[in-house]
Amino acid sequence: MARQRIATLLTDFGTRDPYVAEMKGTILQICPEATLVDVTHDIAPHDVLGAAFTLAQVAPRFPQGTVHVVVVDPGVGTHRAILALQYGGQRFICPDNGVITFIAQRFDIESLFSVQNARYFAPDEASQTFQGRDIFAPAAAHLLNGIPISRLGEQPAKPMLLDIPQPEGDERSIRGEIIYVDRFGNLISNIPESMLRQRWPRLEAMTVTCGGKETGPLRPAYGYAGDEAPMSLINSMKLLEVAVNCQRACDVFGAGIGAPILVTDAGRE
Amino acid sequence: MARQRIATLLTDFGTRDPYVAEMKGTILQICPEATLVDVTHDIAPHDVLGAAFTLAQVAPRFPQGTVHVVVVDPGVGTHRAILALQYGGQRFICPDNGVITFIAQRFDIESLFSVQNARYFAPDEASQTFQGRDIFAPAAAHLLNGIPISRLGEQPAKPMLLDIPQPEGDERSIRGEIIYVDRFGNLISNIPESMLRQRWPRLEAMTVTCGGKETGPLRPAYGYAGDEAPMSLINSMKLLEVAVNCQRACDVFGAGIGAPILVTDAGRE
Amino acid sequence: MARQRIATLLTDFGTRDPYVAEMKGTILQICPEATLVDVTHDIAPHDVLGAAFTLAQVAPRFPQGTVHVVVVDPGVGTHRAILALQYGGQRFICPDNGVITFIAQRFDIESLFSVQNARYFAPDEASQTFQGRDIFAPAAAHLLNGIPISRLGEQPAKPMLLDIPQPEGDERSIRGEIIYVDRFGNLISNIPESMLRQRWPRLEAMTVTCGGKETGPLRPAYGYAGDEAPMSLINSMKLLEVAVNCQRACDVFGAGIGAPILVTDAGRE
Repeated sequence: MARQRIATLLTDFGTRDPYVAEMKGTILQICPEATLVDVTHDIAPHDVLGAAFTLAQVAPRFPQGTVHVVVVDPGVGTHRAILALQYGGQRFICPDNGVITFIAQRFDIESLFSVQNARYFAPDEASQTFQGRDIFAPAAAHLLNGIPISRLGEQPAKPMLLDIPQPEGDERSIRGEIIYVDRFGNLISNIPESMLRQRWPRLEAMTVTCGGKETGPLRPAYGYAGDEAPMSLINSMKLLEVAVNCQRACDVFGAGIGAPILVTDAGRE
Repeated sequence: MARQRIATLLTDFGTRDPYVAEMKGTILQICPEATLVDVTHDIAPHDVLGAAFTLAQVAPRFPQGTVHVVVVDPGVGTHRAILALQYGGQRFICPDNGVITFIAQRFDIESLFSVQNARYFAPDEASQTFQGRDIFAPAAAHLLNGIPISRLGEQPAKPMLLDIPQPEGDERSIRGEIIYVDRFGNLISNIPESMLRQRWPRLEAMTVTCGGKETGPLRPAYGYAGDEAPMSLINSMKLLEVAVNCQRACDVFGAGIGAPILVTDAGRE
Repeated sequence: MARQRIATLLTDFGTRDPYVAEMKGTILQICPEATLVDVTHDIAPHDVLGAAFTLAQVAPRFPQGTVHVVVVDPGVGTHRAILALQYGGQRFICPDNGVITFIAQRFDIESLFSVQNARYFAPDEASQTFQGRDIFAPAAAHLLNGIPISRLGEQPAKPMLLDIPQPEGDERSIRGEIIYVDRFGNLISNIPESMLRQRWPRLEAMTVTCGGKETGPLRPAYGYAGDEAPMSLINSMKLLEVAVNCQRACDVFGAGIGAPILVTDAGRE
């Protein structure tokens, strides 16, 4: 556990309304020493898959014991559970809607509890419309203050996981799809570097096709291609990515989330 | 007073210009231990009412002694006063333009001073165009450092308050209006739960009409209505709100700030 | 050096992707006590000039010893150097692409090193596509932890500086240009107050023309002009600025970055 008491927040609340600050005030009221870090509040409303992807990129970078609070929660106030989990030394408070999926693929589960114990809710009556403030935030703050995660509630069987698209390979090719488009318009696929290296150990002599268009050669970094030249690369998440230097690949390739991406031997179709 | 030295910032500066960070640097130069929390910087330029609403939702959630710095200030550099106030154990540095209105409705005033003492301004000559950086931020930092609020200046008679719309009821109905539209397009009215409960103790058998259109039944939470079903609910601010699950109520109802909202007995017009 | 360990972040990453939080997690993993401040992440993609301007406004406001991390870096992963610099008691980790230009104009250089020592990179293999996370952030965190800046690498000859437009004056006029347009649409020029005062000691009897249109008189602050009245003023950066109270000057004057601004004696052309 880190000496510092760090909590991150990942929501679809945007940043212009009072909601995020209400959560932060609630955490600081219970744990005034907390260090609060915004992951992002600009997840598209109710985009559980986007939140799951973002969480898996970010959480492992933090010190052990950090509490990651995720409120992308279309089912707020219904009977879906609120979970407290631990994977890879990181702690999570999130709705049981699959937002933990990519984390659960990469790490073994270390703790799993429902957040039910009203003793650790906000001191006022908890609203049913803003459980992020009235349940998630206080639970996170109490974890930062050192209560054992097991105090929060019962142990459910297992967290809900999303059925996410997996890349597939045969002797001729690997087929995947775009799972995230970032602010720069870069197209991030679900094909990991490790899967590519099984077939092309030095990542050479591959042809990458996205949205029916070839990307040009694999580059070590964005700046290695000329301006407006399409390229593919292994990105900082160790995933195959399609990019265009100084342009939006999503526009150039006419591709977005769900678009197919195909890797073949160079020269083959 | 909290052990931690917490300041919040609420402005209409946006987040792409240097202004917010100039304020934060100024605070940290005077009080390096400060914990800084952004409420929002996306208040519409000069929207004092929106800032007042946001401040009242957020400030009471913070630990006692927090200093809330509000710079939504169309009159910057003119003769409007800058105030240091305390309500409900929370401290505020803000222009005397009514941004404290909703806080003043909910809490008794505990302190009221003008911020005039140049000893607590920025060390360089204070600009007349960016008093947020040169007066508000240093005053807040000195409060965090423990100076008594009375050192900042004289005691004015009373803060300016906005003339805000109040809901009205007769034996047949309650009439209010929409005072805030959030990022999700939810329409938040000025009708408090407590006023509704005086007439409908269990919040049943009410009909809510907004923009000339009925909302459907009062729901305990967003997720209880079907997708795209309009609803009304008591929100986390304990105000009557009109929402549409997974859609923007402001578009569906063709309503915005100032739109009338009417509550009647179910079955009556 | 401040007791607090403060790092600021200035990037063109936006706030909706995982990238900023990955950097923050990386810093906190190495220096859990760090106080992290966002300058902005909304620099236009690859706008080195805008980042340079913003950095120079913000950095001098922070406590001595603060580490400012700048990742606006079109050349990421190519052979451009990464620099660790000190000017005016402030420390900087940035690409060697001119982003330090305005700081270098205002302060004498105190330290200059390349960031090359892989011992201070991220513990995993550093990616070539996200050096902000894998090199800049760890180097900053190690500086916060107290390593001498000279440990990071070799001393290069000098940092690259941008060739930025300078205002010019003759006996009749001063000619400059707009170098920044802020969120409010205010037009900020490269003409410093000090240059104006050499000719007009009390800043009177000047005529300011921008985009071919006169601005009206110099005002002490925005609120001194009537609504929708154009004005010029000396802004909080001590630069000549063109503004329109409650309107966007960039629209009213049809002017943007690079637009000429002319100051003459009132009455002269």
